[in-house]
Amino acid sequence: MTEITKIQGIGFTKTENYPNAEKIEYTPAPLKPTDVDIKILACGVCGADTHFPRGDFFPPQLPIIPGHEIVGIVINKGSEVNDNDIKIGDRVGIGAQCDSCGNCYRCENNHEVNCKKSILTYGNFHKIDGRQGGYASHIRINHKFAFQIPDNIPTNVAAPLFCGGMTSLSPLLITNVGKGTEVAIVGIGGIGHMSIMFAKALGANVTAISSSNSKKELALKLGATRFISTKDDPDYLTKNEDAFDVIVHTGSFVNTKTVTELISMLRPEGNLQLITGLSTGEEALNLNPFMLCANNSKIGGIYSGSPSKIKFMLKLASEHEVFPMIECLDINQENVTQALVRIEKSDVKFRFVLTGYDKYFG
Amino acid sequence: MTEITKIQGIGFTKTENYPNAEKIEYTPAPLKPTDVDIKILACGVCGADTHFPRGDFFPPQLPIIPGHEIVGIVINKGSEVNDNDIKIGDRVGIGAQCDSCGNCYRCENNHEVNCKKSILTYGNFHKIDGRQGGYASHIRINHKFAFQIPDNIPTNVAAPLFCGGMTSLSPLLITNVGKGTEVAIVGIGGIGHMSIMFAKALGANVTAISSSNSKKELALKLGATRFISTKDDPDYLTKNEDAFDVIVHTGSFVNTKTVTELISMLRPEGNLQLITGLSTGEEALNLNPFMLCANNSKIGGIYSGSPSKIKFMLKLASEHEVFPMIECLDINQENVTQALVRIEKSDVKFRFVLTGYDKYFG
Repeated sequence: MTEITKIQGIGFTKTENYPNAEKIEYTPAPLKPTDVDIKILACGVCGADTHFPRGDFFPPQLPIIPGHEIVGIVINKGSEVNDNDIKIGDRVGIGAQCDSCGNCYRCENNHEVNCKKSILTYGNFHKIDGRQGGYASHIRINHKFAFQIPDNIPTNVAAPLFCGGMTSLSPLLITNVGKGTEVAIVGIGGIGHMSIMFAKALGANVTAISSSNSKKELALKLGATRFISTKDDPDYLTKNEDAFDVIVHTGSFVNTKTVTELISMLRPEGNLQLITGLSTGEEALNLNPFMLCANNSKIGGIYSGSPSKIKFMLKLASEHEVFPMIECLDINQENVTQALVRIEKSDVKFRFVLTGYDKYFG
Repeated sequence: MTEITKIQGIGFTKTENYPNAEKIEYTPAPLKPTDVDIKILACGVCGADTHFPRGDFFPPQLPIIPGHEIVGIVINKGSEVNDNDIKIGDRVGIGAQCDSCGNCYRCENNHEVNCKKSILTYGNFHKIDGRQGGYASHIRINHKFAFQIPDNIPTNVAAPLFCGGMTSLSPLLITNVGKGTEVAIVGIGGIGHMSIMFAKALGANVTAISSSNSKKELALKLGATRFISTKDDPDYLTKNEDAFDVIVHTGSFVNTKTVTELISMLRPEGNLQLITGLSTGEEALNLNPFMLCANNSKIGGIYSGSPSKIKFMLKLASEHEVFPMIECLDINQENVTQALVRIEKSDVKFRFVLTGYDKYFG
């Protein structure tokens, strides 16, 4: 048992320093009886890691150390964490959420991610002392939000599952995708490439929709059985009327035109699932209810996943080898900056993972 | 077997004559092998009957005889209608749809109501010779859209089930309402009062939401276990956070404010269901996807129901005595006018049914 006292990390002390990452040291909040200390081995770089430090959502609490796709080894635990839950030496992963109140309707009904007192792994609206993300040597969190990783998932590959992977799978679970469901995955990027794999793992027939043919071969390899290049097939909307039970839009932003077009390809009683916010300049999706009524359609959104879903996600990923495609970078200031800058340009296939923690933090 | 040749009805020859109903006679389209002729006994008066003749949706094909909540007796049938399907003398009901193409994806998958070649009982966009609604002595239609009525449902009570009843039940079916589901029915009118009964029949815990307390006693009698008067409880939104799995908005019109407020009362992974169009002056619902993402919510719409659902609806109504509350009026020009005018003022508890067909049409 090695209780951590100081944590070394890489992040930002001022928003104007972005994207030039700095060394930061912080003292973790005191160990609670339900907490575990984790020595970090790898951390995925999520799109959110570009938004929080710059204050795209709200002014950040500074300093800020990003990272919420964390894999590490348990090195210490509080008095109430028993070995049935988690053991010293376990390899665990942590996503975007690290705690919740534990006693509201949502927490008691497997909706912890929607708890109104949810605490994010990093990037909280209010200042939380001793709470930072995974571009760091260690992290201390409630053991309920650290999840044992099945042995056959390599450490680096596991990291992106904890935010990106869950975000890829949630829209499929909430729409009951299963054997034979006709699913379209729109956008083949960090999320979309995992959505294709997860949809196939659930037994769906998967169509990948992309703006060009450049990712066709990859999409088919990942498990899609059909591919649509919207640029090369201007009539794809009319050709695909009644083609899909579920359409998941995985792009970074969404707008009224896209939503309207996608809904037109749904079968009656179909679902369009969104995971993102609005395109720049759009103030809202402008929807006519008749568009939903005409074909008994639904439009929904998802926000990550609660612990029960993360556990299911890991099981599914293990059994079907849903292994995200990653580019590994040794963690250091330069590489953190590089990863963030390249993510903004969508210059990554398909998720960055920071590795080599031992080399950098010792 | 009495093949009908001329049909007497009440409707409008010009939009400017509305609401002064006129006598109209028409020749039905030739009998197809799959058709049945029905002598009408009763017909519900639906809100749509005020909109179609005035051209609120599109310029009407004239003359127009409204009515799509029809109950009658089969008096003649085409050569391909066998007695296992429907017999001379059967008491049947007809809703808003009277035919579909029969061989598209939608027709072959129990989504006939969404068939792109669906033909409405009356009020079609394109001119269809010999096709009018149920304010008339008879109707001739494809037997697939005439449904045998269980014996314990009285004729006059059965009529509103065929459009209003199906519209009340569909949002509950599409959101998988069952035992223990927490359902809120917003608006206690022609649709809402049936929604309460159907939700209870499915085993849900029903909360009725109305603008005042005036319908409290009735709502509880119909099967609601809770009642919210929005006027008398200004804090009802915050008090009912996480209260509902499913909310059905049954009002005549909907707007952004209402939708936003209702979504705030949904539990995570909850559904808001709409059945209507926009309030006057609203061009669209302005929705931010984050509103849906935050709690993994869905918003959906429904449009009536296909034959398999109508059959289920009749079974449920029979077993649980879901009997709409009706005001009967003998059919004649004055009463048709009166019913339409009073519906526009919401001056009906809760559905008008035109009766006394024998007296008027002989």
